[in-house]
Amino acid sequence: MTLHEASSSVPELGVAMIGSGLMAKSHTMGYRNVESVYGSTPLRPRFEILADAGDELARNGATSLGYARWTTDWREAVGDPAVDVVDIVTPNFLHKEIAMAAIAAGKHVYCEKPLALSAADAQEMYQAAEAAGVKTLVGFNYLRNPAIAEARRLVAEGVLGDLWTFQGRFVLDACSDPDVPFTWRFERKRAGTGALGDLGAHVVSLAQVLVGPIASVVGLSRTFIPTRPEPTGVFGYGSGADLEAARHPVENDDATTFLMEFASGATGHIEASRVATGRTWHQSIELIGSRGALQFVQQDIHTLRLYVTGDPVERKGYKEVELGPAHGDYGAFWPFAGVPLGVHELKTIEVNELLHAIAEDRPADGDFEAGWRVSQVLDAVEQSATERRWVDVS
Amino acid sequence: MTLHEASSSVPELGVAMIGSGLMAKSHTMGYRNVESVYGSTPLRPRFEILADAGDELARNGATSLGYARWTTDWREAVGDPAVDVVDIVTPNFLHKEIAMAAIAAGKHVYCEKPLALSAADAQEMYQAAEAAGVKTLVGFNYLRNPAIAEARRLVAEGVLGDLWTFQGRFVLDACSDPDVPFTWRFERKRAGTGALGDLGAHVVSLAQVLVGPIASVVGLSRTFIPTRPEPTGVFGYGSGADLEAARHPVENDDATTFLMEFASGATGHIEASRVATGRTWHQSIELIGSRGALQFVQQDIHTLRLYVTGDPVERKGYKEVELGPAHGDYGAFWPFAGVPLGVHELKTIEVNELLHAIAEDRPADGDFEAGWRVSQVLDAVEQSATERRWVDVS
Amino acid sequence: MTLHEASSSVPELGVAMIGSGLMAKSHTMGYRNVESVYGSTPLRPRFEILADAGDELARNGATSLGYARWTTDWREAVGDPAVDVVDIVTPNFLHKEIAMAAIAAGKHVYCEKPLALSAADAQEMYQAAEAAGVKTLVGFNYLRNPAIAEARRLVAEGVLGDLWTFQGRFVLDACSDPDVPFTWRFERKRAGTGALGDLGAHVVSLAQVLVGPIASVVGLSRTFIPTRPEPTGVFGYGSGADLEAARHPVENDDATTFLMEFASGATGHIEASRVATGRTWHQSIELIGSRGALQFVQQDIHTLRLYVTGDPVERKGYKEVELGPAHGDYGAFWPFAGVPLGVHELKTIEVNELLHAIAEDRPADGDFEAGWRVSQVLDAVEQSATERRWVDVS
Amino acid sequence: MTLHEASSSVPELGVAMIGSGLMAKSHTMGYRNVESVYGSTPLRPRFEILADAGDELARNGATSLGYARWTTDWREAVGDPAVDVVDIVTPNFLHKEIAMAAIAAGKHVYCEKPLALSAADAQEMYQAAEAAGVKTLVGFNYLRNPAIAEARRLVAEGVLGDLWTFQGRFVLDACSDPDVPFTWRFERKRAGTGALGDLGAHVVSLAQVLVGPIASVVGLSRTFIPTRPEPTGVFGYGSGADLEAARHPVENDDATTFLMEFASGATGHIEASRVATGRTWHQSIELIGSRGALQFVQQDIHTLRLYVTGDPVERKGYKEVELGPAHGDYGAFWPFAGVPLGVHELKTIEVNELLHAIAEDRPADGDFEAGWRVSQVLDAVEQSATERRWVDVS
Repeated sequence: MTLHEASSSVPELGVAMIGSGLMAKSHTMGYRNVESVYGSTPLRPRFEILADAGDELARNGATSLGYARWTTDWREAVGDPAVDVVDIVTPNFLHKEIAMAAIAAGKHVYCEKPLALSAADAQEMYQAAEAAGVKTLVGFNYLRNPAIAEARRLVAEGVLGDLWTFQGRFVLDACSDPDVPFTWRFERKRAGTGALGDLGAHVVSLAQVLVGPIASVVGLSRTFIPTRPEPTGVFGYGSGADLEAARHPVENDDATTFLMEFASGATGHIEASRVATGRTWHQSIELIGSRGALQFVQQDIHTLRLYVTGDPVERKGYKEVELGPAHGDYGAFWPFAGVPLGVHELKTIEVNELLHAIAEDRPADGDFEAGWRVSQVLDAVEQSATERRWVDVS
Repeated sequence: MTLHEASSSVPELGVAMIGSGLMAKSHTMGYRNVESVYGSTPLRPRFEILADAGDELARNGATSLGYARWTTDWREAVGDPAVDVVDIVTPNFLHKEIAMAAIAAGKHVYCEKPLALSAADAQEMYQAAEAAGVKTLVGFNYLRNPAIAEARRLVAEGVLGDLWTFQGRFVLDACSDPDVPFTWRFERKRAGTGALGDLGAHVVSLAQVLVGPIASVVGLSRTFIPTRPEPTGVFGYGSGADLEAARHPVENDDATTFLMEFASGATGHIEASRVATGRTWHQSIELIGSRGALQFVQQDIHTLRLYVTGDPVERKGYKEVELGPAHGDYGAFWPFAGVPLGVHELKTIEVNELLHAIAEDRPADGDFEAGWRVSQVLDAVEQSATERRWVDVS
Repeated sequence: MTLHEASSSVPELGVAMIGSGLMAKSHTMGYRNVESVYGSTPLRPRFEILADAGDELARNGATSLGYARWTTDWREAVGDPAVDVVDIVTPNFLHKEIAMAAIAAGKHVYCEKPLALSAADAQEMYQAAEAAGVKTLVGFNYLRNPAIAEARRLVAEGVLGDLWTFQGRFVLDACSDPDVPFTWRFERKRAGTGALGDLGAHVVSLAQVLVGPIASVVGLSRTFIPTRPEPTGVFGYGSGADLEAARHPVENDDATTFLMEFASGATGHIEASRVATGRTWHQSIELIGSRGALQFVQQDIHTLRLYVTGDPVERKGYKEVELGPAHGDYGAFWPFAGVPLGVHELKTIEVNELLHAIAEDRPADGDFEAGWRVSQVLDAVEQSATERRWVDVS
Repeated sequence: MTLHEASSSVPELGVAMIGSGLMAKSHTMGYRNVESVYGSTPLRPRFEILADAGDELARNGATSLGYARWTTDWREAVGDPAVDVVDIVTPNFLHKEIAMAAIAAGKHVYCEKPLALSAADAQEMYQAAEAAGVKTLVGFNYLRNPAIAEARRLVAEGVLGDLWTFQGRFVLDACSDPDVPFTWRFERKRAGTGALGDLGAHVVSLAQVLVGPIASVVGLSRTFIPTRPEPTGVFGYGSGADLEAARHPVENDDATTFLMEFASGATGHIEASRVATGRTWHQSIELIGSRGALQFVQQDIHTLRLYVTGDPVERKGYKEVELGPAHGDYGAFWPFAGVPLGVHELKTIEVNELLHAIAEDRPADGDFEAGWRVSQVLDAVEQSATERRWVDVS
């Protein structure tokens, strides 16, 4: 007999997914692939329940994503004893209520960004989780990716010297067409800010982990397209609209640009735009220090551009470092350098961090506290744009 | 009661994986993610058996990749009644024996490239599969990716006009270091050719689907590093070696460059190298026609560079088309354009093609016949390099 | 007799060059090549006098650059009856005195940027020239280059739609080394601002010709390297210093970053830095509108990246327009597209504009009025950085 | 008295220019700017005579380019006692006759490439010049540019180790339009080969100075557009044609691709095409060795991409070296790195080499002997394409 049963003694972790859209798919594949990617896992996800607003969404989501049960009432999922972690991938305005309920039920929480509609809400969520002793994670996506992991290491080891300036952009043109229909994303009370919270939040989180606390900001926001047609059945960025439909006023920013002073004295600039005509999905950072500098463009996922002083003048130049097993968790995916990792694949890195934080009873990198600190900056930027002045980050 | 059991009536497909290395991981994640990615699947993979050469490799592979059983005897896997498809991710020299056994057992076969060590072997495999009525697929990786799918569509619709020239490269420097140890990849009878079969095969397959049959070739091969140290326990590209170890003569090409005449009259050039110092993982094609042209660099996975004649002279220029839902299967992964897909993610596209071919009882795009046609070109290139003359592809 | 004397009836224009450094060389080659480049000229430059501070500088400059006479007293040059145009390529603090003297003597004036140390000075210079009826030009370098000429045309014709956001950078690392010696460039009263005036001025001039008047600004300046060693004989960016030398406090900004509101409602951001470690000479702009966008990187001189809405979704993408005879004055240099023009060559375009303005008795594009309008913005940025608030451009 | 006469004791060199087109302009500006650029010159060019085929061309050329006399009989120019160097910028088929006459008259000769229509002719020219003791130069354009000068230095100092592979391309689409009219460039007896001689010659010259002698070649040529309309008055690439005009068969190659074996054992591939649809003006090389590699794209004139082994694995990567004063003659143009040099500016480097060769009585880098060696390779490629076999370079 040469066929053996495979077995595993790894403890399981029951997952409830609240939402069935793109991020539900991405998070679920992260849980599902984490052991294959890393070769082992401290906790083996078990796909318990998927919840979404309607029967069809919930049923189809559970089936195609592989959850054992489905419901249209997220409270069922949050309260289920087989569930250990609640994963929130709903529109922004639902984050707080679901997370607070999950925390109250003693569940770990993994929530998409922005964590909340205000820093005050985010603080409440963070403090509740801390009090309850559950682990949390915000879906920042980028904090532990190979390029950023390497950038953080370079900064920590002083390779770049004193940090002087940070530049960050997250700009795309998903909403440049004035006939992209009005959805919750354009609504102040359900989305919070627009480009600032949706896109800028990512860059703020990178600025904070790379350069440290942001002390003060001054920003400028614009809603270049003041009204949008009511949607007609279909949803989401890019969906068609009935051009005869009534037009609804847009309630948040299409584009925000702001300057920053870091506590360290470094300066920075961030631009976020959902109407950056021609830019499909451009996210980039540049960090300049006294002894080196780095550039990273998210689309060029396989490369970190790095400059370090000290080369002879005839060899001075930015280096295109191909990311590989020497950088962050890259080696879990591929044994040779230079291969692009996919956006869904990167979610696996975040899931792995969550599983380890739970298993090791330690805060996750990018937890609700980090989410709260991002929210503080976003609130200050919004205030500075409204009041047309510098605002200190509280 | 608002919690419902999820259920699926999709028929299952038992998978046996022969091998437990990188490609085993990649294929397995492809099978596992295909339904989540596409939202539905015609056949739901069931992970039956993983086979590898030693107990530890087989057991660990089965556990981390999620196979129910493991074995060190691939014949057990091939013969198991619960297995419907045999997936071969072993060193090249084992492909034929395993595939022939699987075909004889009436199993579908998914085999990594190069399909075989010679065109004659590949032909035998193809004909056996055809006679047995089983479906086959060669792991070409790139044939149906969004960029190539779009390129094939552009060619088919005549957007590029008459095709004139093809350029393709697959060059990397995994073996530039003369102390990369001697493994089966450097051995003629277990690997076949070197860079030509390992890297050039990919480019030949792209040339054939884009430009059509290759009529004749003339090539030049070099083994720039004539000997390599015997390995010391560890394996694979990039592994360390005992520099005191005896050095073994390398038996196949480090680099091959060749010209091609297509049956259509188009000309082409392909370069394959495993000693392209400084090139981490560079694969690129350029196709020029009478009315347009395109360029694709595999690392820049999110972009297809496209030129079409007819613009006013002040607007003439190559366009960087960001790949998106309008291109091939991209939309299964992401609803907005411009996001890089990972190499493992792309394997899902190939798996999806295999599952549909089996379910629809039709040949897969990239089946053993296609593998055989690639092998014919590789054999001709090798002969032309040896005999220093043009050779017709038989 | 088949050999004929060549003759020209083009009137001449006597040139006096005040300064003998890099810009003297560049301007002189501009005058000298203008007729060869354009095939004809309305005025043929005659190289009368070169003035510089010391005998050797003045004599060598006149000899190698081909001026008939030299002097160490610029007033001699300004007052000479054979001189029609005075060309000022001295350190910034001398611009005003020389220009005012030249204007008083009824000479046309071509002056390097920044025009003056303050907007008040610049205004005085502009008004004096207007009163005297002489033509003026500021050496902005970039206003009429093929890429910018084409960008201005695209904006003027509405191809980009409503203009929404402008991004501009001029960053380099000439002063990243803390041992770059203290020269006039670091001195407030001889250079004015630092990176802002030296580098930012260029980008402001581009912003104004492309997007229109700037209404208000808020900026942030830093002197990251607070002291520099006294120079020891040698001069200029990058020259060596005696590391034992006393260190002198730097008096102006190493880096300035600022937000802008245009009168049109568009927003903008400009960054200028002389300590952008790793950036050798990076100047770039991005202009986004409702119907299109463009990007230009000065180093990639042969390409204007252009996006225009309206393509079918599968062909959406930025186009790399290779500049050519269809764009601005490119055709004067080269009859086919895609060839880089050199920085000195581009100076010829500016000289051609000056000669035509004089010959046609019209203001030059980029005259002292334009220089004054740039200075107004620079003054407002400086004030906003000092006072930490938004400042209206007067 | 503070105004001094400038004077120079530099000996003069009388120049005769045969031709008045683009290259006449470029060469003339080279002669005219050489002293300003370099600060000094061993010989000061004196612009004696310009010759072209018709009165208007010759007169206008002399006037705008600044020659003292003009003629329609090039023999007058060649024989004039005030002429020291004869500069040949005519169509290819006239090179030999004019050069032989100039050599017979004891003049130095600067001739555009390709030097002659056959290696036999080129050899005759080279040997005549050597016998006459005159200096010669072929207008290869690229041999001494900063990037290539640096590449040659890197090779010479062994930085790249043993050289393994060379890739070179010169492809453009000036003739992709089938209605580009038939001119001398498409005629075998006046142009020689097509893309091979016009474009490929440049790359062959680079291959030879970087990698050494080429031992054997095998190539493939195509005339993708078999006929072109007779021209109607206007001339040159890109000029309009009367589409009703009779079409004339094209007599030379639109595109040639060939493999090379260098005497050293290195391999290479060169592609030349005048019908590379979408490629405006693309010239690039890649050189890979055992310890390093480099890439250079002519349009990206400011950057040499360089890879050298030995970095720690986390810092492995190609470096974008910004060319500057440390590289070749760059410093004559600009004191800081990173600035693009223009195509005309680069001609100044070639002129400087010619003037120094004459003044120092030594062969110029890129003389007729070098031109002959290029012609030998071109002849062998043409023969190999005709005879469909490898051909040794005699």
